Amino acid sequence: MSDRDAARPTPRIPRGFRDLFAADLAARRQMVQTIIGVYERFGFEALDTPAFEYLDVLGKFLPESDTPAGGVFALRDDDEQWMALRYDHTAPLSRFYAQHGNRLTNPFRRYQVGPVWRQEKPGPGRFREFYQCDFDTVGTDSMVADAEICAVVATCFEALGIGRGDYILKVNNRKVLGGVLDAIGLPQDQSGGRLTVLRAIDKLDRLGEDGVRLLLGKGRMDASGDYTRGAGLAAEQIEIVMGYLGACVSDRQEVCGRLRELVGGSEEGEEGVRELEEIHDLLDAMDLGPDQVLFDPSVVRGLAYYTGPVVEAVLTFEVEEDGEKRELGSLLGGGRYDDLVERFTGEKIPATGASIGVDRLLAALEALGRLEADRAERPVVITIFERDRMADYQRMASDLRSAGIAAELYLGKKGFRQQLKYADKRDSPVAVIAGSNEFEGGTVTLKDLRLGKKLSREITDREKWKEQPAQVSVKREDLVSGVRSLLERHS
Amino acid sequence: MSDRDAARPTPRIPRGFRDLFAADLAARRQMVQTIIGVYERFGFEALDTPAFEYLDVLGKFLPESDTPAGGVFALRDDDEQWMALRYDHTAPLSRFYAQHGNRLTNPFRRYQVGPVWRQEKPGPGRFREFYQCDFDTVGTDSMVADAEICAVVATCFEALGIGRGDYILKVNNRKVLGGVLDAIGLPQDQSGGRLTVLRAIDKLDRLGEDGVRLLLGKGRMDASGDYTRGAGLAAEQIEIVMGYLGACVSDRQEVCGRLRELVGGSEEGEEGVRELEEIHDLLDAMDLGPDQVLFDPSVVRGLAYYTGPVVEAVLTFEVEEDGEKRELGSLLGGGRYDDLVERFTGEKIPATGASIGVDRLLAALEALGRLEADRAERPVVITIFERDRMADYQRMASDLRSAGIAAELYLGKKGFRQQLKYADKRDSPVAVIAGSNEFEGGTVTLKDLRLGKKLSREITDREKWKEQPAQVSVKREDLVSGVRSLLERHS
Repeated sequence: MSDRDAARPTPRIPRGFRDLFAADLAARRQMVQTIIGVYERFGFEALDTPAFEYLDVLGKFLPESDTPAGGVFALRDDDEQWMALRYDHTAPLSRFYAQHGNRLTNPFRRYQVGPVWRQEKPGPGRFREFYQCDFDTVGTDSMVADAEICAVVATCFEALGIGRGDYILKVNNRKVLGGVLDAIGLPQDQSGGRLTVLRAIDKLDRLGEDGVRLLLGKGRMDASGDYTRGAGLAAEQIEIVMGYLGACVSDRQEVCGRLRELVGGSEEGEEGVRELEEIHDLLDAMDLGPDQVLFDPSVVRGLAYYTGPVVEAVLTFEVEEDGEKRELGSLLGGGRYDDLVERFTGEKIPATGASIGVDRLLAALEALGRLEADRAERPVVITIFERDRMADYQRMASDLRSAGIAAELYLGKKGFRQQLKYADKRDSPVAVIAGSNEFEGGTVTLKDLRLGKKLSREITDREKWKEQPAQVSVKREDLVSGVRSLLERHS
Repeated sequence: MSDRDAARPTPRIPRGFRDLFAADLAARRQMVQTIIGVYERFGFEALDTPAFEYLDVLGKFLPESDTPAGGVFALRDDDEQWMALRYDHTAPLSRFYAQHGNRLTNPFRRYQVGPVWRQEKPGPGRFREFYQCDFDTVGTDSMVADAEICAVVATCFEALGIGRGDYILKVNNRKVLGGVLDAIGLPQDQSGGRLTVLRAIDKLDRLGEDGVRLLLGKGRMDASGDYTRGAGLAAEQIEIVMGYLGACVSDRQEVCGRLRELVGGSEEGEEGVRELEEIHDLLDAMDLGPDQVLFDPSVVRGLAYYTGPVVEAVLTFEVEEDGEKRELGSLLGGGRYDDLVERFTGEKIPATGASIGVDRLLAALEALGRLEADRAERPVVITIFERDRMADYQRMASDLRSAGIAAELYLGKKGFRQQLKYADKRDSPVAVIAGSNEFEGGTVTLKDLRLGKKLSREITDREKWKEQPAQVSVKREDLVSGVRSLLERHS
């Protein structure tokens, strides 16, 4: 190895990051545009905060972990202040609102779309940079804003082709759970007893009822022998909590009735039930039935910061990945957080919102076959025979582009067969061929590259395709119309 | 101040960063979509690399400064490797191509749009996070790829409403300058003599001819008394370089002729002139005249890494900012860089491309009055009179949204006048009003909020507007058609 070699860096991508290719990006772009369209129809307006915030402004908690600091990509600016990349869109919104709230319309509805970064351990399908589409309403305690979260999400899903029945939104209210814990006499202390109960409940999906029972009681040993201390509830307390978790039925009003019994007169609990009833009426007004939105008391949303209604969305079917069927997990998380702006100003500002996870939603659309590549946009490839005729080839490309048809010259140095291979790899619909014969005769040859592919898929209909030859010769001045008619064959 | 107050962080944004509001974002989104559309029509496909790259992969140079390290936001990952945020889209492309080149179509055309980050001193209009739209062709030394840079950019500008005559693309070739320096006997050494000449030439815009003459000779003292050492050329050498810099005339072929004389038989110089001639033929084939693309030998593009044709784009008029007319500077920079992938693989891979600066281009569009806000998208505001009728108001919003009309309920707690003020601040086109009278009569009142604004602008035509009352009453079931007809008044 020479000195030069030794100095060469290895081209590699940082752990937990990835490159996204054209097909992924086209799908994401299309999806995000649909989502933004829905957000705007509901009156949310765009906001873009910078990638960096000061670390003290972001606060010490990642939303879905309770570990202090860590979890963010932080660095010291040249004036020695610590900055970090945003780990979600909510913390920057709180900063923004605390800074500019007086000048904004009040209530303030905004959406934000873009990457967030988390310095977590990367794993399969677990990236350290990912896209989120958030929408939030700040400055109102009206349940309309909470009910509309469901309407926004249902409208997004259905606009994207995830039909009624393929998804379910699950709504709960943290106040109801608070009421249940009041009712069983668990004190609202600072020691974290209630947080332990929340964490236990949040593991229902993963550990099942028995696991949660153990975590609500003395504790639980996992398969590896690790022991998690429990919340230390007594047996009858555990039964009430488990009854609460199992209170989900399809009739939302019936759920409210059961919950009212369980909160046993707790003021906070009663308020939570009233809020759910109000949400139910509003959902009804928007024609959102129980096949779209359920009240499910087992939904907690790990975050400590939620203070009222919470919501998540799941698919009702399993998706196949690497040959294995599995549940895709929550496509969306959200809820009411009335304390986040207070951190800065001391003033309680009610707020509610939700965040759509772009990658999971893309995976869902793929599983449903809703991600059809926009093949019409692939470029026509103009092959090169006569290297001293580049200006003529260039003019062909120019003519096609002026007519709105994507086109490119082959710019490599290979022969004709290799050029067709290139066109195939580009998924090009049409190759334009012009050699000395064509230039002399004032013509071009057009090769329909999709015909072959289509023929092999639709062999039953060979007769039909015989009438449509794979290769046609047209006059040079008819290049555009000739290409267009080949493109239209397959549209 | 209480302990709580003391612990409160101040809501503030990091230095050199900014929040972008809905109107800015809508303009950017629209502009970027137009640009992407053109890129795709030319056969470029999307690629998205992550925000982070390993520091050794990015290399030690910011493209437009020659200072080692610094200038990037870098941090150590938890495995102790140094990572940094990308400072442009070219370095990540080089890494990507070095890693995946074998599996890509060759040549490979890609575009990338997104933020880049530079840890530079912030200043007015100088941000540390900004958007760039890059497109590059990797794997070909064909001048078609270079000529197409001009075609792509001209098409983008004209699609955005920057017409012929409002902009000019300036093309040069670094090889020609190399040839001129050959011709005056300046050696191709490692001591940086040629780089000093490049830097001097690059300052022509700022310092004028006399300043450049000084920098080519012994050196120059600036107004503050700082002295910059010159390249140390002799008087006759300086005259040749100055003659070269002044060789720009509108006839591109004539420029090529003058340059051929100036390079005086230098092999590199002759090759550079031949490349420009080839580019001229290709520009002609794409109908790009000298009012769109000039050959201007004074264009250097500071970067050390360019190896052949270089291009920049400027507006032909000054824009007004803060009451002062000024030139907007280059909207685009690009050129051929045949060495960047070699850094990783040892193999020379020819590449060429350019980068559109989104913020400057937006400023240009604003100066040209091409940024019309899309007012049609502002939400209809449904005002609230009867708080126990929220479900009914919600249904109205739902009906409007289902018809594709943006709508929102007022969710604050204020009275009617305040609600109309809110609607005005939202720039809402129509307010929906329903109190007990309306509910009893099965009607809604619609208030045309744009009419007042329009009246005050178009007072000459008052008669016309008298026929169109600002407030109409329609049946509840005609809400959607009623709102639509008010919206159509102003479209």
